[in-house]
Amino acid sequence: VSEFIYGIDIGGTTIKIGLFSKLGTLINKWEINTNTTNFGKNILNDIATFIKSNEVPLEKVIGYGFGVPGPVIDTTVLNCVNLGWNQVDIKKELSTVLQNENIFVANDANAAALGETKNGASKGFKDSVMITLGTGVGSGVIIDNKIITGSNGAAGELGHIKLIHDNGLPCGCGNNGCLETVASATGLKNITCHLLNDSKKISTLKCSKELNAKMIFDAANNMDELAITAIDRFTYYIATAIQIITVSVNPEIVVIGGGVSKAGEPLLNKIINHFKNIGFSSVKDTKIVLAKLGNDAGIYGAAGMVKV
Amino acid sequence: VSEFIYGIDIGGTTIKIGLFSKLGTLINKWEINTNTTNFGKNILNDIATFIKSNEVPLEKVIGYGFGVPGPVIDTTVLNCVNLGWNQVDIKKELSTVLQNENIFVANDANAAALGETKNGASKGFKDSVMITLGTGVGSGVIIDNKIITGSNGAAGELGHIKLIHDNGLPCGCGNNGCLETVASATGLKNITCHLLNDSKKISTLKCSKELNAKMIFDAANNMDELAITAIDRFTYYIATAIQIITVSVNPEIVVIGGGVSKAGEPLLNKIINHFKNIGFSSVKDTKIVLAKLGNDAGIYGAAGMVKV
Repeated sequence: VSEFIYGIDIGGTTIKIGLFSKLGTLINKWEINTNTTNFGKNILNDIATFIKSNEVPLEKVIGYGFGVPGPVIDTTVLNCVNLGWNQVDIKKELSTVLQNENIFVANDANAAALGETKNGASKGFKDSVMITLGTGVGSGVIIDNKIITGSNGAAGELGHIKLIHDNGLPCGCGNNGCLETVASATGLKNITCHLLNDSKKISTLKCSKELNAKMIFDAANNMDELAITAIDRFTYYIATAIQIITVSVNPEIVVIGGGVSKAGEPLLNKIINHFKNIGFSSVKDTKIVLAKLGNDAGIYGAAGMVKV
Repeated sequence: VSEFIYGIDIGGTTIKIGLFSKLGTLINKWEINTNTTNFGKNILNDIATFIKSNEVPLEKVIGYGFGVPGPVIDTTVLNCVNLGWNQVDIKKELSTVLQNENIFVANDANAAALGETKNGASKGFKDSVMITLGTGVGSGVIIDNKIITGSNGAAGELGHIKLIHDNGLPCGCGNNGCLETVASATGLKNITCHLLNDSKKISTLKCSKELNAKMIFDAANNMDELAITAIDRFTYYIATAIQIITVSVNPEIVVIGGGVSKAGEPLLNKIINHFKNIGFSSVKDTKIVLAKLGNDAGIYGAAGMVKV
């Protein structure tokens, strides 16, 4: 009988491979390097080779879930700049070599959102949204325990909500004023640099290439007023994204993850305070919590998509 | 055998009652007055009395769907200011008298959104959003042919997206700067009055109690520059709401309805033009269309919820 599930999170640097029981318990996990040369042509082969060489025979595997850093429709990735991919149908590419048709694919932020519902901060909630604050802003919308992908795989692209309508900064997507330009690690740096250029406040910070989110949090902890103001604006923008999502899909819980969320409870409390001020009356009590699974959210969510 | 479905749209002034075939064809429709006296205590009795006196015997009815102007969870309306209601479980109130347990309830804007997918502008699309521009801004989100209600019945409350962050006008919900304050009929008037007070542009319009959306559209048609500017801003705000919803749930199609949508194709084209400028790249081609069912959308959607 088949008893195992693989959850695989393909990132631009490493591929995380998780082996799960039928019930979703993580049994073992590995990391292999992502070979992005030659338009990422070897990535799927490398994964298949790893899995075939593993001690679990293929016939014992119920199915495979994949998280990928790009938009997905069904089992097809539309494009993945980080991997060098254009359109790739992962199921089509792997079903023969893995001798399995039970293959599911999701955008990595969507997979992470599902992962947190399986074994993390949103476990037990059927409607949730996860916002991942890293270099950019990723997010995933889960309704009725399922990832919402949307008709172009763009559901949960909250990082590209146009939030700033006058003089917004350019975003990687080609627009300007996107949430991502003010609510990511880069966004916090953008806000800080703007304040440094614009105000006469004394600060220990300098707008330079080296300036990063951690330095700004540290300065705020040391009572640097400009850093405190920057973080106040930064958390207001995140709260605004939550305001929007709570009147759009009205989840039970919002999970904040990603590298920036390592700033922990103090960051979370600032977001919650802003949200209490601007949230729509009937959703003001929406739970807002920190993610729990860290880098494992992706493999949990990838495995969680597999039909048992 | 049961062959009929009732779709009932309870408004603050009238109650629309539609009799549908099993396949969703509208057979007949009626309107009765909404008796809001005594906290709307007679509304459900009036509906039951009408239905029992109708020529279709109760045992021939498959089920009943209701649209109501307030937030709904399952079959319970949480509150309806327009009807005088606090919490009312419509199924509980009516299942005995109608001898039927197959009773479904939705917010009226959500029911209208579903109605347009059943027989209107979004027919054939499984993921859609309808934005109803009237005195306020209502909306409904349909995913996989089902209404998204959210955990507090607040999904699709796009009218309460906080859009204006500095000096936003007060909204009926208690917040300020909500989409509704700038993207409804009232919102268009607000923008126009703001421009009249703020600029030195000559205009045929005056900010008075009598000023309404139709007068502003008429003035714009007569090349009144201030009116043209007001409508440009107004349609930009609507496009912004569409921008947000297309990166949140990424529907295949967005339907614009409500009284304001009677301004027709010219209004629609302005919204589309703004959206092409600010939409996230992969969703720029999302269809944006005018609603088709007018006031009948609610009864179609109410009937459409009933399990056959």
